[in-house]
Amino acid sequence: MTAAAQLERTLHEEIPLTRALGIRVAAYDGATLQLAAPLAPNTNHKSTAFGGSLYALAVLCGWGLLHLKLHEAGLHKHIVIQESSIRYLLPVAEDMLASCTLDADAYAHLLRALHKHGRGRLTLQVAIKLEGQAAVEFSGRYVVHD
Amino acid sequence: MTAAAQLERTLHEEIPLTRALGIRVAAYDGATLQLAAPLAPNTNHKSTAFGGSLYALAVLCGWGLLHLKLHEAGLHKHIVIQESSIRYLLPVAEDMLASCTLDADAYAHLLRALHKHGRGRLTLQVAIKLEGQAAVEFSGRYVVHD
Repeated sequence: MTAAAQLERTLHEEIPLTRALGIRVAAYDGATLQLAAPLAPNTNHKSTAFGGSLYALAVLCGWGLLHLKLHEAGLHKHIVIQESSIRYLLPVAEDMLASCTLDADAYAHLLRALHKHGRGRLTLQVAIKLEGQAAVEFSGRYVVHD
Repeated sequence: MTAAAQLERTLHEEIPLTRALGIRVAAYDGATLQLAAPLAPNTNHKSTAFGGSLYALAVLCGWGLLHLKLHEAGLHKHIVIQESSIRYLLPVAEDMLASCTLDADAYAHLLRALHKHGRGRLTLQVAIKLEGQAAVEFSGRYVVHD
């Protein structure tokens, strides 16, 4: 089983709401993780994507990327979201695709903190785009600890 | 049907994810709205409430309060979340209760803007508490327009 397939199984098993959201792992290349969700179960009163669904997809995209990278490094840690902000720039009236790319320097800094203190923090940016334009911008600060 | 029961029906019909979240209207007194959701369908990998579920409950608590107040004023407008931030202060290992209280001055300001320009903005604070202590603090800026 690939790391991406394993992440999808982890999400569906450990966070049951991800099944209602229809979240699946769309792509992972070692630095960027893309999570997808269909519009149908996530609509709002305006037949566009519900802001809470867009948030859930974004926060899990950052969480999933950290989860994959730390597993690759042989580190089985807890990852929790500490605080975040989100901006809704365009309504999303189609299936959603969230994308998160790891900054190598920030990740190296996190690994050093984990090695030294057993815990660390990392801020990740997640974007949901429509035809190349940012529809949702998310920034989340995650805490990693034993 | 009370305004609170009508809001619950609106949420369940127009935002189907609210049924998966198990959201219900717990209380409304004309100034404060409380929305509740059970822990069971909203757990994460640590058996506490998933950050995305807490966010969804909070963003809908603010949305629902505005929806109720504007309907009382005879105003049938669109309400959309523009941007928000959330802080997770304590893990929530029980059923969730979100609470949002309207600031009378800020609401009067919104009504004046709607009367004058047909649109306006309002920032709402939502709290999810555990035994009186804030477990989650949410702040959301909503836009109201025709």
